Amino acid sequence: MPRGSCRARPLVVAAFTNEEGVRFAPDMMGSLVHAGGLGLAEALASIGTDGTVLGEELRRIGYASSMAPGTIRPAAYLELHVEQGPVLERDGAAIGAVEDLQGISWQRLRIEGRANHAGTTPMALRRDAGHAAARIVTGLRALATGGTAATVGSLRLEPDAINVISGAAVLTVDLRDPDEGRLAAAEAALAGLVAEVAAEEGVAITTERLARFQPVRFDPALVARIEQAAAKRGLPVRRMTSGAGHDAQMLARICPSAMIFVPSRDGISHNPAEYTAPEALVAGAEVLLDVVRGLLDADQGPG
Amino acid sequence: MPRGSCRARPLVVAAFTNEEGVRFAPDMMGSLVHAGGLGLAEALASIGTDGTVLGEELRRIGYASSMAPGTIRPAAYLELHVEQGPVLERDGAAIGAVEDLQGISWQRLRIEGRANHAGTTPMALRRDAGHAAARIVTGLRALATGGTAATVGSLRLEPDAINVISGAAVLTVDLRDPDEGRLAAAEAALAGLVAEVAAEEGVAITTERLARFQPVRFDPALVARIEQAAAKRGLPVRRMTSGAGHDAQMLARICPSAMIFVPSRDGISHNPAEYTAPEALVAGAEVLLDVVRGLLDADQGPG
Repeated sequence: MPRGSCRARPLVVAAFTNEEGVRFAPDMMGSLVHAGGLGLAEALASIGTDGTVLGEELRRIGYASSMAPGTIRPAAYLELHVEQGPVLERDGAAIGAVEDLQGISWQRLRIEGRANHAGTTPMALRRDAGHAAARIVTGLRALATGGTAATVGSLRLEPDAINVISGAAVLTVDLRDPDEGRLAAAEAALAGLVAEVAAEEGVAITTERLARFQPVRFDPALVARIEQAAAKRGLPVRRMTSGAGHDAQMLARICPSAMIFVPSRDGISHNPAEYTAPEALVAGAEVLLDVVRGLLDADQGPG
Repeated sequence: MPRGSCRARPLVVAAFTNEEGVRFAPDMMGSLVHAGGLGLAEALASIGTDGTVLGEELRRIGYASSMAPGTIRPAAYLELHVEQGPVLERDGAAIGAVEDLQGISWQRLRIEGRANHAGTTPMALRRDAGHAAARIVTGLRALATGGTAATVGSLRLEPDAINVISGAAVLTVDLRDPDEGRLAAAEAALAGLVAEVAAEEGVAITTERLARFQPVRFDPALVARIEQAAAKRGLPVRRMTSGAGHDAQMLARICPSAMIFVPSRDGISHNPAEYTAPEALVAGAEVLLDVVRGLLDADQGPG
């Protein structure tokens, strides 16, 4: 609705399919498809960790839609989110004006060794896929320097029995860095580590890329508006980088985008103990509302 | 049946419950209970990896028996088995006269860290249970020296998701050594490693003992009979240590016991590729028969 001199714009609240990406890769899939970064057919053909097909699952649960991706092109995209990290709490800030977002590299490694008896196979003759996997996990820490974060969140052994040397291991590697050069260097270092471990342990290692997103810089004018709106309400605010991936990074491909963070207690998320105080959530929502109002007021179109 | 001057003895072929021990610990459970090394009630109360109770499962599948453990006390116990290792094949021997058997130590470690977001949690603030587990796996190799074998066959992360730092990890450790002093030293070294990793990674680690058997020396007279029987048939024979645990080590508590090994191709076992040639199996069975006949012939009792 028109209000004073400002131009009215339709407000759209969107819930994108598969932001988390745990079952179907890549993560932030819905917003990526909407922004044209991934074809619809390719996304719908994605195979889940349980062997299911995304398109079939969306039809099954009634979430499949007929609207063509990219139909709605926003004038601006704002995303309010809990920080999921310790920075705001540590600095006593109520609002984070997110100016950029880390690049993300997800890979799945499959290691093929030779299953054998734990009691009868001499240590020197083993091709232990589990031991090779552990060497990659510990070796990754040496790569996680100067701002790179490295995580092995999933690791499974086969046959996973107490008295059997592992014949195979599957693990995931999550690398993140706000700097594209460092992220690419970490990926290259991982490839070197994988080759070294494969040669020394007598195992074969195959690498599959699950997701790869370059770091994103949000719209500077929007970030400044968030900062100003928080200051106007007397809320301590700081500019920051998002460690997590968010749909905003995909929408940034097609419109000015930015994010507002509110504090996460103890920096904990992806854990049942995740908590943000109600008043912190309200503060974030008020800043969001203020920024949206400011954008409408700034519109100088004929209405 | 009496034959010539020898005394007749009943021949018993036994199949002991739960020799492998993958679902219910400890392994070699049936023979251990029969030999008096573990109480029947305690064994039947064993909880499986799937949460089931052994006694209930035995009743369910019709394998529960009313015969008191130890009812049958053999005059001698002989076990024919594939080697499951590479020694006989490497040495061109057809028969192994097994004179001793490694001690076995099985432990389960549970590591409690803190689940958190892989992108937002600084490397220095992590309490990554999966990383701690990998450090134990790689550190174990340094303990596996001078005859000790060390294996982590099972390792599971929680929640096991690509973008979540592991809040918990559960792994098993299988330590074996033919020398009790070295085995105990390896256990002590593992405890030191666990304490070091717990302190440095900020995680809590609890250790549960699943099985512990000292090395066993088989009956020297029986071992000599096996050696002689093989030689009499012109079969290349060598004395050796069993790397695997076997029911014979439990029966050795209550009667003269020994084992006959036949070669495993490529030393592979606990793997679908496990293979022993039919003629090698026949050779082992013939040596077994010869030794049993010899024992009966040696009996000087009144019959």
